[in-house]
Amino acid sequence: MSGPIDFWFSIGSTYTYLTVMRIDDVARRAGVTFRWRPFDVRAVMLAMDNIPFSTKPIKACYMWRDLERHAEMYGVPWSGIPTYPLKHLTFVNRIALIGCKEGWCADYARAAYRCWFGNGRDISLEPDLSDSLRDIGQDPTRVLALAASDEWKSALQAETGTASALGIFGVPTFVVGEEIFWGDDRLDDAINWHRHGKLKPT
Amino acid sequence: MSGPIDFWFSIGSTYTYLTVMRIDDVARRAGVTFRWRPFDVRAVMLAMDNIPFSTKPIKACYMWRDLERHAEMYGVPWSGIPTYPLKHLTFVNRIALIGCKEGWCADYARAAYRCWFGNGRDISLEPDLSDSLRDIGQDPTRVLALAASDEWKSALQAETGTASALGIFGVPTFVVGEEIFWGDDRLDDAINWHRHGKLKPT
Repeated sequence: MSGPIDFWFSIGSTYTYLTVMRIDDVARRAGVTFRWRPFDVRAVMLAMDNIPFSTKPIKACYMWRDLERHAEMYGVPWSGIPTYPLKHLTFVNRIALIGCKEGWCADYARAAYRCWFGNGRDISLEPDLSDSLRDIGQDPTRVLALAASDEWKSALQAETGTASALGIFGVPTFVVGEEIFWGDDRLDDAINWHRHGKLKPT
Repeated sequence: MSGPIDFWFSIGSTYTYLTVMRIDDVARRAGVTFRWRPFDVRAVMLAMDNIPFSTKPIKACYMWRDLERHAEMYGVPWSGIPTYPLKHLTFVNRIALIGCKEGWCADYARAAYRCWFGNGRDISLEPDLSDSLRDIGQDPTRVLALAASDEWKSALQAETGTASALGIFGVPTFVVGEEIFWGDDRLDDAINWHRHGKLKPT
């Protein structure tokens, strides 16, 4: 299959940390491209009453350990369990969407995740919110004003509606044609499908 | 690490179908052994209010498609979506536990899953319940009487308590030392950890 693979994500998702940090390397090695598609997964999950971790401490404990083991395997930095959940998930994903239009979405997502998992603090709050933008050479005053505007509220809602209509219910999710692949651990499947139109045994 | 990997499962779990059908091949190729540990995952999940599919149709729809794609990749038979959930999950896992004592647990689990996914009918109900036992040369009258006994009710409850105490909250789960790995898609991780004491990059 030609064309990019859509990479749907929300900054604030735990496993998306792994994907954001490794997807460029994976893309280079596999010879595929990804189109970064931020949306508000929390809105979709709340609408489905899909609350995987915050009311399930045992499952949450497992998730962090699983994430830590995979971070080590992928060579992604791990400094311990960060603040979770992010308070203003919607807002930071509006910033990411502005970044898509202006060409710095991936850089912002990486900066935000590096700050979140590196320092452990909530990057949807100040000072980290502005620091993540400064890190990538963006003016926080300008970008935060845009992100608070009705235009970008509507834009993220529209993207969230598109994701929901595709049957996306969690992140990261990769879309290849009609097929959706949910989870950082399905990244290889998405590439396999993109290449072969099925999951060829590896 | 020496010794077997504990393979905790419940007949009635959807993804466990993949594991049950492929684990012997995987074990041979990897040179590891697995100890089959049936328990009542439904009791653990209900206690945690962890209901991943039955109230979440979009997620359930994805799960079946993901399962189908992986079945095809692994060469595991796929005849469509079977009846779900099983009505008497606890009972069939008591049978599996009897099979552990008597040496036919894996054969029973495979027979039950083949019948469930092959015919699509609930294998915790007759006639499939008895047919699955006859398929592996067991006398249904004898085994069903045992499975209804207080002794085996208590035995499965004890195993379920052990699983829960280990932090197991879903199946299949693989236990290697202090580490738990949840999901058919973590089987490779479990073997990797068993071999290297960490997740070595592959």
